[in-house]
This record gives sequence, structure tokens and C-alpha cells, in this order.
Amino acid sequence: MKEYVFRDPVHGDIPVRDPTVLALVDAPEMQRLRRIRQLGTSFISYPGAEHTRFAHSLGVYHLMGRALDLLQARAGVALEPEERALGVCAALLHDAGHGPFSHLFERLTGRSHEAWTERILTSPSTTVHQVLRDRDPTWPAAIADLLAGRGGPPLLHDLLSSQLDVDRMDYLLRDSLMCGVSYGRFDLDRLLSCLTAVPGEGGPRLAVTAKGQGAAESFILARYFMYWNVYFHKATRAAEVILYGLLRRASDLVRAGAAPDPLPGALAALLAGREPDLADYLALDEVDVLAAVKAWTRAPDRTLADLSRRVLERRLLKALPLRAAPDPDQLRAVRERVASLGFPDPEYYVQVDRADNVAYSYYLSPAAGGAQPIWIASEERGRLRVEEISARSVVLQGITERAVTRHVLFVPAEAREAVLPLVQRQLLFDL
Amino acid sequence: MKEYVFRDPVHGDIPVRDPTVLALVDAPEMQRLRRIRQLGTSFISYPGAEHTRFAHSLGVYHLMGRALDLLQARAGVALEPEERALGVCAALLHDAGHGPFSHLFERLTGRSHEAWTERILTSPSTTVHQVLRDRDPTWPAAIADLLAGRGGPPLLHDLLSSQLDVDRMDYLLRDSLMCGVSYGRFDLDRLLSCLTAVPGEGGPRLAVTAKGQGAAESFILARYFMYWNVYFHKATRAAEVILYGLLRRASDLVRAGAAPDPLPGALAALLAGREPDLADYLALDEVDVLAAVKAWTRAPDRTLADLSRRVLERRLLKALPLRAAPDPDQLRAVRERVASLGFPDPEYYVQVDRADNVAYSYYLSPAAGGAQPIWIASEERGRLRVEEISARSVVLQGITERAVTRHVLFVPAEAREAVLPLVQRQLLFDL
Amino acid sequence: MKEYVFRDPVHGDIPVRDPTVLALVDAPEMQRLRRIRQLGTSFISYPGAEHTRFAHSLGVYHLMGRALDLLQARAGVALEPEERALGVCAALLHDAGHGPFSHLFERLTGRSHEAWTERILTSPSTTVHQVLRDRDPTWPAAIADLLAGRGGPPLLHDLLSSQLDVDRMDYLLRDSLMCGVSYGRFDLDRLLSCLTAVPGEGGPRLAVTAKGQGAAESFILARYFMYWNVYFHKATRAAEVILYGLLRRASDLVRAGAAPDPLPGALAALLAGREPDLADYLALDEVDVLAAVKAWTRAPDRTLADLSRRVLERRLLKALPLRAAPDPDQLRAVRERVASLGFPDPEYYVQVDRADNVAYSYYLSPAAGGAQPIWIASEERGRLRVEEISARSVVLQGITERAVTRHVLFVPAEAREAVLPLVQRQLLFDL
Amino acid sequence: MKEYVFRDPVHGDIPVRDPTVLALVDAPEMQRLRRIRQLGTSFISYPGAEHTRFAHSLGVYHLMGRALDLLQARAGVALEPEERALGVCAALLHDAGHGPFSHLFERLTGRSHEAWTERILTSPSTTVHQVLRDRDPTWPAAIADLLAGRGGPPLLHDLLSSQLDVDRMDYLLRDSLMCGVSYGRFDLDRLLSCLTAVPGEGGPRLAVTAKGQGAAESFILARYFMYWNVYFHKATRAAEVILYGLLRRASDLVRAGAAPDPLPGALAALLAGREPDLADYLALDEVDVLAAVKAWTRAPDRTLADLSRRVLERRLLKALPLRAAPDPDQLRAVRERVASLGFPDPEYYVQVDRADNVAYSYYLSPAAGGAQPIWIASEERGRLRVEEISARSVVLQGITERAVTRHVLFVPAEAREAVLPLVQRQLLFDL
Repeated sequence: MKEYVFRDPVHGDIPVRDPTVLALVDAPEMQRLRRIRQLGTSFISYPGAEHTRFAHSLGVYHLMGRALDLLQARAGVALEPEERALGVCAALLHDAGHGPFSHLFERLTGRSHEAWTERILTSPSTTVHQVLRDRDPTWPAAIADLLAGRGGPPLLHDLLSSQLDVDRMDYLLRDSLMCGVSYGRFDLDRLLSCLTAVPGEGGPRLAVTAKGQGAAESFILARYFMYWNVYFHKATRAAEVILYGLLRRASDLVRAGAAPDPLPGALAALLAGREPDLADYLALDEVDVLAAVKAWTRAPDRTLADLSRRVLERRLLKALPLRAAPDPDQLRAVRERVASLGFPDPEYYVQVDRADNVAYSYYLSPAAGGAQPIWIASEERGRLRVEEISARSVVLQGITERAVTRHVLFVPAEAREAVLPLVQRQLLFDL
Repeated sequence: MKEYVFRDPVHGDIPVRDPTVLALVDAPEMQRLRRIRQLGTSFISYPGAEHTRFAHSLGVYHLMGRALDLLQARAGVALEPEERALGVCAALLHDAGHGPFSHLFERLTGRSHEAWTERILTSPSTTVHQVLRDRDPTWPAAIADLLAGRGGPPLLHDLLSSQLDVDRMDYLLRDSLMCGVSYGRFDLDRLLSCLTAVPGEGGPRLAVTAKGQGAAESFILARYFMYWNVYFHKATRAAEVILYGLLRRASDLVRAGAAPDPLPGALAALLAGREPDLADYLALDEVDVLAAVKAWTRAPDRTLADLSRRVLERRLLKALPLRAAPDPDQLRAVRERVASLGFPDPEYYVQVDRADNVAYSYYLSPAAGGAQPIWIASEERGRLRVEEISARSVVLQGITERAVTRHVLFVPAEAREAVLPLVQRQLLFDL
Repeated sequence: MKEYVFRDPVHGDIPVRDPTVLALVDAPEMQRLRRIRQLGTSFISYPGAEHTRFAHSLGVYHLMGRALDLLQARAGVALEPEERALGVCAALLHDAGHGPFSHLFERLTGRSHEAWTERILTSPSTTVHQVLRDRDPTWPAAIADLLAGRGGPPLLHDLLSSQLDVDRMDYLLRDSLMCGVSYGRFDLDRLLSCLTAVPGEGGPRLAVTAKGQGAAESFILARYFMYWNVYFHKATRAAEVILYGLLRRASDLVRAGAAPDPLPGALAALLAGREPDLADYLALDEVDVLAAVKAWTRAPDRTLADLSRRVLERRLLKALPLRAAPDPDQLRAVRERVASLGFPDPEYYVQVDRADNVAYSYYLSPAAGGAQPIWIASEERGRLRVEEISARSVVLQGITERAVTRHVLFVPAEAREAVLPLVQRQLLFDL
Repeated sequence: MKEYVFRDPVHGDIPVRDPTVLALVDAPEMQRLRRIRQLGTSFISYPGAEHTRFAHSLGVYHLMGRALDLLQARAGVALEPEERALGVCAALLHDAGHGPFSHLFERLTGRSHEAWTERILTSPSTTVHQVLRDRDPTWPAAIADLLAGRGGPPLLHDLLSSQLDVDRMDYLLRDSLMCGVSYGRFDLDRLLSCLTAVPGEGGPRLAVTAKGQGAAESFILARYFMYWNVYFHKATRAAEVILYGLLRRASDLVRAGAAPDPLPGALAALLAGREPDLADYLALDEVDVLAAVKAWTRAPDRTLADLSRRVLERRLLKALPLRAAPDPDQLRAVRERVASLGFPDPEYYVQVDRADNVAYSYYLSPAAGGAQPIWIASEERGRLRVEEISARSVVLQGITERAVTRHVLFVPAEAREAVLPLVQRQLLFDL
């Protein structure tokens, strides 16, 4: 049996032995994830954040295998070999549908990457589909169902997509390492070894033993800290809003019949609000977007060209954190002031970033409508007792079910001084 | 200038250049801390927790130097060289008064180690006193005042003894490493580099910049996790209660005129509730206590001998976690049951451990009477703003000012089954 | 004084305070290094090896500052503030001239990146030049001289470019982390704190104290291990040879007047063997090369299109390690066999990779003509004694001055079985 | 099935499930290893080196389990469950016979700890023997044979005691961590996952796959660096020679009928050169030795009292590194000089420490008579090829089979200046 070993900054050796898994890794649809960054525009602010969705996918695959092996060995969860294989393949493929700067395009077009993942799995034209089908004709649909939460063993779905999934485990550790911060670290080994299964509707569900409560709490807190110190950091958001402004400008030009040149087909379709062909979509990656941005620095449209140069040279918009959102009059006044300073299209340069614009939760109890929460399993006088973690945890009280709002006004550095008086009453400055 | 470098598992190289510091390290009063463990009895449950107060003292010294250097370089805090030297010497000496299994003897005798630290500093007979006096005749008293909070620059006192002191920084990292857990880790480098000073009564006080709020929050949470997962862990407590029972038995024998043999003078005094001479106290360390325990395994008093063997062979009492404290009738019944199983002196074998028996706080706001809290300094529209951290922090809401109660009944393993029915109604079992 | 803090996976916080340094970081010529990977094609084999020359440049800047500060504080080396500033700017800029897949183009064109660095420094058109000149009119030339070894304090040159330079220190740690291996780790803190200066021609030269010999030895060994386990690993070389074959094909087409389309100007010039304008060269990065490779998958030239697809989908050539280089007859036979299997242009698909093709040395003593070696400074009976490290070191005996040869024949996977019998006598297989 | 988890600074969680293993851990003979340090006197120089043989034994047990599991899963080595259980028990017990400051007593008495291990295993009076016998009557003898190399599967013996054994793997990592140095680190995960088995006399033998050569080389080098930077460091040796001098003085007094008081029976026997009863030996640990040293500070014998105080207060002898051993005349002169300075018994204060006094090898090829060497297994043209690692390794050339000599003269600090001229010609000074 031949084994291929990937070397990974987060997990060290990631051995692959199943030929199906190796064929999936080598499929062009997965290889393209090498050209799509895990954290989108964050590399602009964090010099190390160049890690890709490909590396993350391998990490999630690896953690799924470790979790299933430990569930079997330590918690006695019975698992058929083919069920395990299905689980690790689903983990590997969970992000297959992501496009370049995925979240930006989702905001721009309202279409989600999950739909693309499903098309990749179920279209006979993709190598991913063919490899899965050759292994087992039921697998393409089974994995699509599993990822969408429409079927399959609930335990696998919990591991793939819940508030305790291996996706979060990998990205917290990976993003933390690559961004050079320690906020996202938690005790992975301990958390994995305390996983267990409890009876649930449709089969066993994922839970954590009472001994693992501390590890689970610090996993949730790691996510909380990553949100507030990295994902929502003003430097991260500054990088995202400027690329968003640029793409919105390009989109407006495309829709107005003044498409900038060059413009790969799939990118044109996305910017025009149309859905590209699967083949075109799969040909698109961040190389194309960045190549376009490089070319657009010489575009006749002054705003497009200026924004492109700003992205490439990291001349980002400046953040003005606000105690409350600017009202429409304020926003209009800010845009006029910015326009008066030589920005003919101020709507692309003046942006309000709200934390709740972004769908997220560091942890949500079921009452707050979150994904499958984290269950703690204990034994009391011989009876199994299963409680939702926030009901048992003092330290999580502060962050569970709490609505978060945070407003940042972004303006060009050149306009910052002139804009300040217009938002002075709700300004929040930090050292 | 000659330099001596200590190698430390937590901080790597700890260079010492000041001859006064090196002379203090070499003083017999400090060298004895090599024979006193940082975590008392925890080594019985955590095989790695053999680290000493000597290593911890070097670590605190090192962190004080780093903190003062960073405050000067990055926050512009002006510090005289002699003030810095005084600060690092105070840090090195802060635990000088600890005796063997210090907290146990404090419980047994009601006397605190701080009083011994002060005697060591101010008694002309100690090498520590002589070294300090030769450097500057005012230093022995100045360091005693600084440690007691009676005088000296408030900034130094905050660094030595507050909820943001370098003592906590060192012990969280050291205990975490040696106990083989990751709960106590926080981003030390970041926390240190975000220290700053704000105007206060009597001079600048310690604070953290707004950029460091995340690091300070995770420092507080590290302490919370260490309390609940290590310091209050039932295995830790089991080790402590059995040695406590043994020392109480020895104490009762001494007071009854039946002192076990051998018994070093200072230990006899402590067990009799008398205060030993300073010289005798300084001659006492954990070698003596353990040597006595080894000898007591052959003592004529059956209970003393049995408890001694249990300590040495790690046959600890068993923990029964309870939802509420046992009432006096329950406790009497438990002791009778244990006595009936062949334990003539059940009061030493049956112990109730309450978390609030132990003075601690993972974090206390000023309203809750804690030590100097953590201040966050930010700048808003040109004005310095200083807020207590829990007022700014969502994640700390759950653990600030919250009273904690936790009850564990400890009984001999042989009696566990027989005792269970007596406390069944408030029993709490974990997987 | 405002401070900007970069967060780095290797070094944690990298604070920048000098406005000149910050302006250099923000210069377009440096920002483009974000689009040039440190390890060229290695990301194809090591999923984490996406780190850029920009992050490496920041790391080298940071290490230079740490080294100079420690030399001053611990070894008493006197350094003017402006000399320190010059040193850290030179460190930041040392790789400014690198282009996309730099070593490949150096092989293809015979031109070195050092010449481009010099042009960037000395051309009045670059922002880098302007920023330096505004700080001090002598700096552009001074830094160019320093990097080229033509002048300036020898100590700075040793730190920038010798067998003990901060460049190697950063890349060993960075490449090791990102490739997910531990081979490149050495004790950075210890090595830095043992740096010292000894009298030399033209001023003090860099050396290591005798206490640091162990740290210096393991630094050299880290480089040895990285060469043999990563840089020369057959997976690394497989990625490089296929891109090299592709670029050589493109180059041959350009020279034959059949330039593939699209082809950015600077890339066309490089492929044609001409030297592009500085502005064009600076506009070129790996985005352009990868965008071209993506476009070439649809090129009319079958070989170019096929090689492009192989690069993007990681269908690399297969390695056949050989005990000795294939002789010309063997090589001709291999190419004919490969051609017969449907590869019309076998010279691009069959390549012999020799370790000594690549200029390197893990460590070379002066006798072997290496860069400035590592000197160990000790004191014997009051006299300074300076010895070259390999003269003092038992453990380095094996790897100093030893010529290394290693031959790998690369062929398409489809042709491997057919080629095997042709090289069987010198074949070296590993488990 | 109940599981007990030990938390370890080196390996994290060490789960134990086999009741036999747990009973062995809890046996008094193993619990006493908590009171015996892994590195003997090194704690005097390295403040963190307090780790015990108990923690090391758990680590070796853990690594044996991991190695056997990986050999089975990755290299396909067939292993009966009982064979695995025997192997991990042997690993746990391999150091059971060590006494306090074991190597010192071995030098003093010429008796080895291995003989004691065998007595513990085979004497019906020990709990270890009883636990093993209850599991399987053949186990006590089988484990004794395995450890002594007299029988049992060669693969298990190689893992227990060869130049690639799990004993070395644990102690290098543990000593390195606790001494606060990085020299002893190697890639444990990689090394373990590259273990394999090759056909040998009497059954499969341990080997490393060719892919693991780098990991094996750096494992050997880690040992080399630990020897020269920690185990043979003059600070380590200074701590050992002074305790050796003290024990030799005590031994001479005992033999002269002037035994110091107190003196536990087993210690008296050892100092008198007699073999104590097994029970007495097992009652002896470092608590007794240190308690004796504390009491001896008040001994009537002036030399014994003085050396005892020096040990407790870390006033060690000073090291004078020499190019060549002192000749008898020199040594006599040095002793006379030291005596003239007020040391009536100079033979205890003047000691020559030679590296080759100590039995060790960082790596020895079979030709040099080392323990079972490290074999590298590769496949060449379908045939297994097994080579001794130093035959394949360039980097090991320097340190294989090389005799090492190193001489350090230790004298009291007070006598250093006076002694210097007597050894000036062969003096070696370091910065």
C-alpha cells in the first residue's frame, strides 16, 4: 500500500493512503484551491496570511480522520470502514465550491459557495465526481447530502458542520499561526480525545465528555478572540472594504456596458450578476482577479485604476471606529466632503463596516438559533446526562447569545482630517 | 562585567549581571527555596509538578526586568537605574518567606508566609539582609515596604502584587508547562509589550493599552482555567487533603505530648502552633517534612503511620463531588461509617473540601474587593481614558465578581462504596 | 512617535517605528514582493510554502535590529544610531531585486537578482530610492555598497551576507515552519545572544563567543538538513524542473518568433534573453507568470499547453534517483523512449537534476572558498583567540568542504516504467 | 474500561488503560522513583532539572506504546496483544532499580542499578513482582530477560535498549525541556512514524526507513549536543564532583568506624561498600540523602560539614578546563597548595573530571563496540537493503567512533588563583 505524506505547518505529517482520497486531492477542482487564499484579503494586512483553502482542506481531512479514530478507540463508537472513508472525503471536499475572494463575491452577488460545492459533487463532468462515483456510485449524492445536512449519519454531519466541527478546529489554529497571533490556540489533542457520542434523533450525535469541558470552553473562546482580534480587526476590514469597493466599481462598469479589459469570462459573469458555467467558474481563481487588478491600474476609468493601485500598494482606507452607525445625513455629508477632495465616485471610497454585516457567531446556544451546539455528556448516578455547554459554563456566560454591533467608517487617508468633524460625536479612538 | 546565565524551561536564558542580584540568588535563604515546591503537594498527582519556588523566583525576577525595560522603551516610563534594581530584587525575593508545603502550614497555624518574608528582609542575621544593606542601607526596609504595599512607587507595587503582576504571569506559564496542560498559556510577549502607565495617586500606575485588551483578557481566562482544571482539580485536592490530614494528626499528637519521632525543631514548633526561631525556620524545607513522613511510616501511632504510607505510595482519598455541602448529621454519619470499617480516627480520613476554603480569585473587580484590578488605557479625541477591564469586556462578564462554591467529600477508597448511600442525594458524578 | 506592528508567524510582533523604514515597506517595489514566493515552486509540493519574500524581508529586518541591539548591550559594540538605521534598511531591502521564480529565471537568463537590487536602490525613479535619499543623500549608494560587499562597516556586511547572516537565520526558520518540518530549527535566541565582534581588517567583524559554539553548530546543521530534506528533496525539485521545462519551452517559442499569448512585456523580454526596463521588471510578479501559465493551457503549441496543465494540476515529472549521472547515450535513449510514448518534444520532459547545478553550501570553510565563515572567539590566559568554527568542531567534520553530488533523472509518470530498464544499473530506490 | 490519564510536560496526555500497568505505576517500588531525580545532581546547576525517574518511566512507557502501534499500523509488524503489553510493562520498569544519585553510587560502589532492577522483578516480596506474576507467571522472568538482553523478541529489546531506544528518545526531550535548552530536540513524530522492522537473527529487528534518515541523524546529533552542552557542561560536572567528594568523605568515615549521624541503614551499607537488603534499598531515596546532608552540616567532622554546606548553598568547586590531564606531580602540587589554604583533606576538594570517566556514546558504530546501532532500510530494485546509518550519512562522519577526551580540574573557588600557575601550561579558557 503506497502512502503519500503531506507536510503541514499546523499538523506536521498528514499521511494519505486511500487511493480515492489521493485522487481527489489531485483533481483539478481541488488543485485550484491552491490559488484561493483561506482568509481572502487578510494577506494584505497580515504578511503571513497567504495560506490557501487547499492546505485548510487537507487539515480538515486530517482532523476528521483523527476524530473518527479517537471516537472509535476511546469512546467505543462503532464505525464501518466505508463510513469513515465517506467522512474523510466529505471533510476534504467541504470547501470545494469556494471561488476567489469568496465572501466578497457572495456579498456582491448574493450566491453562496455551498451551491457550487454541490454542483462540483454532482456534475458528471468534474474529476471529483468521477473519482467518487468510481469508488461508489452513491457517494457523490451522499457527500452532497451530508454537507448540506440533508442526510447521512448525524455524527458525521456534526463533525463536518456544527459549532464543534473540525472545520473550525483547523481554521482557528491555521489562521492563528499564519497571522502571527496566539489568540486562536486551544488544546486540540485534549479536545479530540474528549469527543464522545450520545444517543440522538437519527443516530448518535457528537458530544464532549465532562472532562473535556475546559478544552471545549477554550475552543469557543479561541474563536471569540480570533473574531475580535483578527477577523474583525480594522486592518483586516480595511483590506476587505477596499477590494470590495474596487469589485463593486468593476461590477457597475460591467453592468453599464463599460467592462474593463481584460476580464476573464467567469469574472465578467460574476460581476454582471450572472451565474457562470461550471467549467468557467472552476477555471477562475485569485490569480485571475489579481491579474485583472494589475491590468486595471492602467484602465481608462480613473476610479477603477486608482482603487487598483491602492490595493496593490497597500494604500488602504482609514478606519474611524464609531460608537453608533452614521445616520444617512452624516453619511451623505461625508461622501460630499470626500468628493470635494478629488474623489469623483465617493461611494466606493466611503464605506461603513458593521460587524453584523457578516454572518458569524463565536458561539450560539440553540435558543439563539445557532448551528448544532456543543453538548457535554456526564454520568450521574449511573445515568447519562447531556447538557448544552453554555448551561454548565460560568466562563461562557458573557459571550453566549449576546448581539454584537460595531461600526467602522472607512475613508481615504487623504480625507481623514476633513471627515473627522462630521462624525466627531460618535468617534471612538484607541491608543 | 561578568554575567551568569540561568537556563529556564519557561523563559529560556535568564541572564544576571547585577552582582547584588547574584549574591541574593546565592544566599542560603534563597537556595533553600530549591527544596520547596511551587505547587506543594501537586507533584503527587501531576508527575511533572516538581518545579520549585526557586525557579519561580528567578522567573518573576526575569519578568520584572522585562516589564520595566518595555515600559521604559515603549511606553516612555522614566525609571532611575536604582529604582529598576530595587524592583527586580523585590521580585526575586517576593516568595522568600515560604516554608515547606506553605499553604498547608498556613491553614494549620494561621500564620502567613508574608510575615516570614519581612523577617528575612529585616533581620541583620540573614545573608539576604546583609547583601541588600551593603548595596544600600535603605533597601531592606524599602523592599519590605514595597512587598507589603506600604510604600514605594505604586507602579512597582502593581507589578509585584496586583491582578496584573509578574508573579501571576510566571506561575501560570510555569504551572501550566509542568502540569502538562495548556490552560495557563497566554500571549506573554504581547501582554508585556502592551503595558503602559497612567497617572495615579502617588505616581504612575500600571495599565494596559487598548491594543492589549485581548492579551489581558486571555491572561485572566488562563487563570480561570488553571483554577478549575488544575488548582481545584480533585486529584490536586486529594493530594492536599491527605497530607493535611497527616500533618493535623501529627499536630494533635504533638499537642497531646506524644510527638512522633524524629521531628526537627522548627517542624515541632509549627505543629505545636508556636513560632520557631528565624534560623530554625530557615533550616526547614520539604526534605525534612518528607523525611519525617518516611520515618513516621514506622510510628507507633497507627493512624499517623497509615497516613504516611498513603502519602508516599499515592494511595489518596477518593473524591465524591457534591452539589451542596454535607450537613453536620451527614458528616457524622459518614465518619461513623468510616470508623466502622477500621479507621479509628475518621476525622483525618473524612474531609470536606470547599473551593472557598481557599483564598483566590481568577479576577475580581474593585467592587468585589479584589487586589488592584487591570486598567485599560485608551485615547479618545486626544484625552486619556482609563477603564477597569471588566467594564469594557464582554468575555469577562461571566467570571467577574461571581461567587463560586464547590464541595468535595474525601473518604478512603476502601470506604467509598459504603459512604455513597449517605450522600447520594447531592452526589455529582462525571464521566 | 507612532509605531506600526506587523504580526509574523515566525517572530511574532515586528514593531516598526522609524518612518523611513515604514515608507520603505510601503514602497511599491517592496509591496510587489508580496506577490513573489520565498521558495519559488516549492508550494507545489509543500502546501504551506506560500510564504513571500515580503514576509522574509520583514523578518530579516527584524533580526538585524535584534542582532545589533544585542551586540551593543551584551558585547559592548559601539554603534551610531544612523549606522544601526542604515543596517536595518539594508536588511529590509536585501532581496528587493528578486523577480518571479527568481532562481528559474536566473538559470534561464544567466542574470542575477543582485543587479536588479542595485538598480532599484540607485535609480531616481523608484520610491525606495526617493525615500532613502530623503533620509540621507548618501544612503542609496551606501546600501548598494554594503549589500555588494564594496564598502561600509564589515560588521554590517557580515550580518547581511556571510555564513552567519540574518538572512539565513530567517529563511531557515521560516521555510522550516511553512514546509511543516522541524529540520531548520535552531536556537535563535541563544545564537543571537552569543554574537560578538572581534578586531578585523577595516573594523570589527562578526563572531560568536565560545559559549555559543553549540548554537552555531546546530545553526549550520539546520541548514544542512534543510538542503537534504527540503531544498533538494525530489518533490521540491520535481516542481522546479517542470516549471523550468515550461519556461524553457516558452522561451524557445519566443526566440523562434512564435511567442505564446498573452505575454506581459517584461516576461517576453526575459524569455527572449533581453533585459527589460526597470519599470517593466518591477511590474512583473508571480501573478503574471501564473496567469500566463493558466492562459497557455489553451495555447496552440501542444507541449506548452500540456506542461501548463501539468503545473496547475500538480502532475509532476517522476524522479529516478541515480547513483551516477546518465551518460549521453543513456540520455539520448531515454529521450527517444519518451518521444516514442507521445511526447514530441522530449527535451522538456526529460531532465537531469544535479545538486551541484545549484550554487549552495551548507557550510564552507575559507579554504573551500565559501562566504565569510563563522569565527569563534574565546579567551585564553587573558588573550583573545579567534578560530574558524570547523577547526574547533568535531560534529562539523563530516560536512565541511565536502563536495556533494546527487543525480536525479526526471521523466513523465507515463514513461517511468519504460525508462527504468535504460538506467537500471545506476538506479537508487528508496522505501 | 476505566482509564487514567497522566499529564506530562513532554508528551501531554499519557492515558493508561491496562489494569496491570496502573497497578505497576502504583506499586511502592515505582512510586519511590518520584523521589529520585532523572538527572541526579544537575538540579543544582539547572533550576528546572527537578524531573524524576518516575516521570521519565511514564514517558518511556508511553513511547513504547506509540512505537509498537506505529510499527503495526504503518510498517505492518504483527504483534500479539500480550507481546505489546509485555513490551510496555518492560518499558515502564526499565529504571526500577535506580537508587538515589544512582551514577554517583555506582562510581562509589562499583555496583550497577541493572542488578537491582532484576532483583525487584524477580523477588516475590515486591509489589511489582506480584502484579506481574498475577498477570502471567512467566512475566517477571520474561521482563528481566528482555531488559538484560538474554531473550525475548529482539524487536522489543531494540526498542528498550539500543542506540535507537525509546529510553533515549524520552530523556533527550525531557532533559532538554527541563534544562531550558533546545539542544535535545528532534522530530519525535517523524522518527516514530519511520520506524520499521527488518529480518534479523531470532526475529525482526528495529530499523528506520530511508525516508527517516534525516530524523534519525538529528536524533543522534541531539544526543551529541546534549552531552557537550548539558551532561558534560562544567556546571553539571561541578555539581556532581562536589556531591561525589562529600559521599566519598562519608564513605571513608564509615569505613574508618566514624560513621556520621544520622545514617539510614541502606545508605550506611552502600557507603561501607556492602549490599543492603532489598527492602532497605527500596526504602532509600534522595530525600534520605539530602536529609543526611542537611544533618551533616552540623557534623563534628569539619570536612564533611563544610562539603555539606557547600552542596546545600550551591558553593561549588571551580572548573579549570585543561588541554591535557594533570600529571601526578602536578596533582600533588595542587593538593598541597589547596591544603595550605586551610583544606585539611584536599583529596575531596581537588578532583579531575574526565569525560571518558563516564560510560557514554553519542553514537557508536558496531565496529566501535556500541550497543545495537541504527539500521536504515531501503528498497533498491525490489530488494531490501539494510545499512548501518553511519555508512550512509555524511553528517555523522565527524562524530562516529571518535574517542573524546576532556579534562577539567575542579578546585575550591578560594584556591583558584593560587592553583592557576600550577596548571598554566595546559589551561584552556573560554569567554
